[in-house]
Amino acid sequence: MKKFMNSVETMLHESLAGFAHCHRDIVTLDSDYRFVRRVEKKSGKVALISGGGSGHEPLHAGFVGYGMLDAACPGQVFTSPTPDQMIAAAEAVDGGAGVLFIVKNYAGDVMNFSLAAEMLANVETVITDDDVAVERSTHSMSRRGVAGTLVVEKVLGAAAERGDLLAALRDLGTRVNSVTRSMGVALSSCTVPAVGTPTFQIGDSEMEMGVGIHGEPGRRRVSPVMSADAIAEAIIRAIVEDIGAQSEREVLLLVNGFGGTPSFELYLMYDAARRQCAKHGLQISRSVVGNYVTSLDMAGCSITVTLLDREITTLWDAPVHTAAMRHGM
Amino acid sequence: MKKFMNSVETMLHESLAGFAHCHRDIVTLDSDYRFVRRVEKKSGKVALISGGGSGHEPLHAGFVGYGMLDAACPGQVFTSPTPDQMIAAAEAVDGGAGVLFIVKNYAGDVMNFSLAAEMLANVETVITDDDVAVERSTHSMSRRGVAGTLVVEKVLGAAAERGDLLAALRDLGTRVNSVTRSMGVALSSCTVPAVGTPTFQIGDSEMEMGVGIHGEPGRRRVSPVMSADAIAEAIIRAIVEDIGAQSEREVLLLVNGFGGTPSFELYLMYDAARRQCAKHGLQISRSVVGNYVTSLDMAGCSITVTLLDREITTLWDAPVHTAAMRHGM
Repeated sequence: MKKFMNSVETMLHESLAGFAHCHRDIVTLDSDYRFVRRVEKKSGKVALISGGGSGHEPLHAGFVGYGMLDAACPGQVFTSPTPDQMIAAAEAVDGGAGVLFIVKNYAGDVMNFSLAAEMLANVETVITDDDVAVERSTHSMSRRGVAGTLVVEKVLGAAAERGDLLAALRDLGTRVNSVTRSMGVALSSCTVPAVGTPTFQIGDSEMEMGVGIHGEPGRRRVSPVMSADAIAEAIIRAIVEDIGAQSEREVLLLVNGFGGTPSFELYLMYDAARRQCAKHGLQISRSVVGNYVTSLDMAGCSITVTLLDREITTLWDAPVHTAAMRHGM
Repeated sequence: MKKFMNSVETMLHESLAGFAHCHRDIVTLDSDYRFVRRVEKKSGKVALISGGGSGHEPLHAGFVGYGMLDAACPGQVFTSPTPDQMIAAAEAVDGGAGVLFIVKNYAGDVMNFSLAAEMLANVETVITDDDVAVERSTHSMSRRGVAGTLVVEKVLGAAAERGDLLAALRDLGTRVNSVTRSMGVALSSCTVPAVGTPTFQIGDSEMEMGVGIHGEPGRRRVSPVMSADAIAEAIIRAIVEDIGAQSEREVLLLVNGFGGTPSFELYLMYDAARRQCAKHGLQISRSVVGNYVTSLDMAGCSITVTLLDREITTLWDAPVHTAAMRHGM
């Protein structure tokens, strides 16, 4: 295992400390490393809190700031944060209008956010499960929450900023998740620092179609590696089959890198994906390409499609000022 | 070699097409793929043009837009663009106030930009050579231009936007380059698509200290891999020894990923680097962490320090709206 690190034990805290120092105009790190929160607390607004295992950066701490999250709770690598983290975060950022948890659908995250919710008043939860690859997986009893979580967090962040109430935000989050689908592919494994060896074995000519963001198995192992066009065709077809034909529908297209794939290849995949979208009559009106929901150093990417309507588009376009996403201000 | 691609021959054009489509609100791709330019040409302003071999994305096309470059000329992977590209770009974006070329110090780039300049009127050139690792290298007769080029392009872009004249911009660029130093380290090689095998061999416990952004050799091969703190200490010491002691001086600190290293590790390296800066009395007042000047899929990073003064800080903070860097608007 080759990584930039001092020790496995200190790695997460050092990375969080670096992140918080670099973006100290936007975020503050709790002194016990339980959460990252916005520098400026806004009262009267529903507080949005997300979190999950580390190793998916910039998700979630990179999305803390104006127009997106109020706090994020980082667990150890690929390990759920504990309920006390979410409780501490809620106490720090609740502005009197309640707290919305945004949780990726993994058993540990769902359980721990649920335990925290039981200890707090005025909490609602949105669970993301946008991954169409498999119906159940290593860490989840149903579909996994992956890169589409970015879209849910951005749209809800804008809605909270304009003053939407807690129940409305919960319903909107559920709706955005329901029109969002993703699927990923891995060219390499990732290596969890505390383990020290790759999460799964993959041959020099193999790829994993439908991989999860912790290296969970997908739909099938493929050899040799498919062309970019064939990968995009398979993923976009899987998404369209799942969400239903949407001819002439405007969509957001997100090509998300898993951490080890350079943007040179991600933009090439975006080009392949947009050609496939055109074949299915999808009109790409918003686009994102980059490393947003990663899997440590995994080489690979995922493609996410969100069906847009006027409300979602307006909220997507609203100003946001976070470490990893910034526009309009 | 595992990459997202359809063929080696079409890879660059497909990646550029994807980039240009994704960011069509900011850039336009020349129909012959010779350059990427701003959507909106601004007359009366000096036009800034950069370029170089591809494989370093988002440099340079990701820095085209308001407050930074007017055009970027992409060569094939790790290969200089040809003079006709720079000439076509200059003709497309010259707003009547002349053209400034910003060129990384590699023999091919310097020669081809120079040939283009001979064919054009009213052109000046700034050459970046911020890499302190080695005094001469595989592709350059003197120091290499690396991630510090980002700082030069940002500062000059803001100065051009406020109306600085050509000669003043050339002098400012030379000055910013002269107060900017970088050094990098590789944990893995990179693989040029047309070659298909890694550019250099590196063992499972080795790192290359002072590596170039094309995988050129650095100062020494080290085994085992040093701790993050030891790497940061070596790099910051090399930078400070070169630039001279600057106690209490405000600096910009850039930790740049080479493409295969996730931000989890980059922020950890930033944390290590800021502790080393503190030891040398450097006050970090501006920070950047991310993949900006990459080396295809290389795992590794570089650290850049720019000595700030009021003018450079003001220009750094000025609004910018490009694919890879955006703030203040």
